[in-house]
Amino acid sequence: MQFMIAPSARLRPSPFFDATVAEGMKALTTYNHMLMPTSFGRPEEEYWRLIRDVSMWDVACERQVELRGPDAAELAQILTVRDLTKFSIGQGKYAPICNHAGILINDPIVMKIAQDRYWYSIADSNIWFWAGAIAAERSLKVEISEPDVSPLAVQGPKAEALVASLCGDWVRELKYFWFRETTLAGIPLVVARSGWSKQGGFELYLLDGAQGTKLWNIVREAGKPWNIGPGAPNLSERIESGLLSFGGDTDANTNPFEVRLGKYVDLGLPNKVVGIEALRRIQKEGPRRHQLGVLLEGSEPVAPQHQFKWHAISSGGRRLGDLTNCVWSYRLKRNIGFALISTDAKPGQAVEVSMGGKAVAGTLAELPFA
Amino acid sequence: MQFMIAPSARLRPSPFFDATVAEGMKALTTYNHMLMPTSFGRPEEEYWRLIRDVSMWDVACERQVELRGPDAAELAQILTVRDLTKFSIGQGKYAPICNHAGILINDPIVMKIAQDRYWYSIADSNIWFWAGAIAAERSLKVEISEPDVSPLAVQGPKAEALVASLCGDWVRELKYFWFRETTLAGIPLVVARSGWSKQGGFELYLLDGAQGTKLWNIVREAGKPWNIGPGAPNLSERIESGLLSFGGDTDANTNPFEVRLGKYVDLGLPNKVVGIEALRRIQKEGPRRHQLGVLLEGSEPVAPQHQFKWHAISSGGRRLGDLTNCVWSYRLKRNIGFALISTDAKPGQAVEVSMGGKAVAGTLAELPFA
Repeated sequence: MQFMIAPSARLRPSPFFDATVAEGMKALTTYNHMLMPTSFGRPEEEYWRLIRDVSMWDVACERQVELRGPDAAELAQILTVRDLTKFSIGQGKYAPICNHAGILINDPIVMKIAQDRYWYSIADSNIWFWAGAIAAERSLKVEISEPDVSPLAVQGPKAEALVASLCGDWVRELKYFWFRETTLAGIPLVVARSGWSKQGGFELYLLDGAQGTKLWNIVREAGKPWNIGPGAPNLSERIESGLLSFGGDTDANTNPFEVRLGKYVDLGLPNKVVGIEALRRIQKEGPRRHQLGVLLEGSEPVAPQHQFKWHAISSGGRRLGDLTNCVWSYRLKRNIGFALISTDAKPGQAVEVSMGGKAVAGTLAELPFA
Repeated sequence: MQFMIAPSARLRPSPFFDATVAEGMKALTTYNHMLMPTSFGRPEEEYWRLIRDVSMWDVACERQVELRGPDAAELAQILTVRDLTKFSIGQGKYAPICNHAGILINDPIVMKIAQDRYWYSIADSNIWFWAGAIAAERSLKVEISEPDVSPLAVQGPKAEALVASLCGDWVRELKYFWFRETTLAGIPLVVARSGWSKQGGFELYLLDGAQGTKLWNIVREAGKPWNIGPGAPNLSERIESGLLSFGGDTDANTNPFEVRLGKYVDLGLPNKVVGIEALRRIQKEGPRRHQLGVLLEGSEPVAPQHQFKWHAISSGGRRLGDLTNCVWSYRLKRNIGFALISTDAKPGQAVEVSMGGKAVAGTLAELPFA
């Protein structure tokens, strides 16, 4: 069951779109109203390339919400429940955003570009509107915009050697989520050690949308000695590695404690931080759900139509929670997924997943998967 | 150039998804993080069915932002630049939402369900976050949620006869955007005279997501005498008719005056209404852009890859604005679109559109097209 995406100007192509089409892009998704390639037609090859070599991904849809002006630092802190007191220019931090009720509404990386300039590099929800509403209602002096910035991810164990060959050995010293501005063949870039995999790598933030094909081709050519090829954020790898997908693994009632983000919540922050008072209450009451892994029985990959939906998890006839994603693990050779599930449910417990009208047996597991 | 949509739980199927798959749905788009069918593989037949008979559309992605509580009416007015003073239970109004700078951020229908309960039936942008931020920052007593409400559109000149046969002759008396709650074969519905076409019709707001296939099949079966078939919001018809697509025909700087929505802006509203002060300033300064039609030369339908992007419009080498959409008109037998263009540009003027590296000749026109 496969469907074509219909063209619409509501859904923008990225600066790397023409290059990914030339590479034979076959499937895509939409993310922040932008098209994001998801496959070039050889899913298993794309997976092992990420695990063993180096893969390049058009993740321009990771848009930046720029905060700029005298109150930019103030707004940056008001928006996230993570403490930004110790924060250097050139540094990035994983910085969950919650609403006033403590519900997670995005899980971006915040980057400090200058004293008066921050980028929230966002997951798939509209933080321009959110930040704009908070800033205007509090009369903060800050401009909020979407700059011409489009990340290209280079991920895998050989990413460092490749990016060092392109940009210089200084990239080897970059700490995780730190970044530096540079140019490559005249193309303005921010190079960050970052990326939505646990295989290591970098994101090259293209600062001129007109040069997408040029940047793609430079990286593609330079990567040949390391067996580079096109890929995309990889569902098998991200689930094996325990990486969260905001909006995929969360619902309209998910707080950070439920999805293993408690360590990024600084409850001592002042009350001006949106959501922090609610999170103190939630933490005191104790979470009702938590996130675990699920290992499913069966030796056939899960059908694509089941991947659009959550699926009820139960045990002994009692509903415990939901399977929020499910994918074939090339490493574990079985279907795996995440459960957002009652805190009564524990790793090792046998469960049943209701999928497409059938009951599939499974076992709960700690995250990340081994 | 066609691409598959990759499955993801970030993008939810609608309650009518299984029914549209059974009908042979071929292409879809995403809208409010939901899948919306766009074609069943016979585009010209789908167009003429809407113009001559009756077409049924899964528009569940038109989600509702529910405001409920003692301050619901207050928030409903704060959110829109249209005056809601005279507003009856059972009535709907087209009600543009602007940010504090007067920029259009959605163009929903607001429906008054009860004295303390409103639905904003939204276009494709996140108004839950927006409304939630405004309500919390102003300490309003109102709950904001996404209820289990999924519209099914029935559009075309024979829609009234069909919906009257299903629900009763009272639907013939419904005024435009007015609605009433009812049941159909036990299925709870809100029936509204509404829909994103100029061919007339209704939207059946399904109030129980578990009964999507049942409702689809009842309408499908009852519509046979009127030659019903599956369809979707039709790009040819909507552009011929001059209907706006928020996010497709607007950018991050578009105010309502630029896109023919000035008549829905009530500048006398109090300053608590978000954006109203900015709109007074904008109106005084005079708009810089306006929206016109464009008739293009050529006898071949525009290629799909050009429909993801805006295209520069110029005249005598001077950039005037953008073509925001372009589609083959079955009625006019040529490609047509909308221009968001300098107010210096006038209907009747000859222009050039830069599309895929080529210059296409065109003529500006009044909207709607004849």
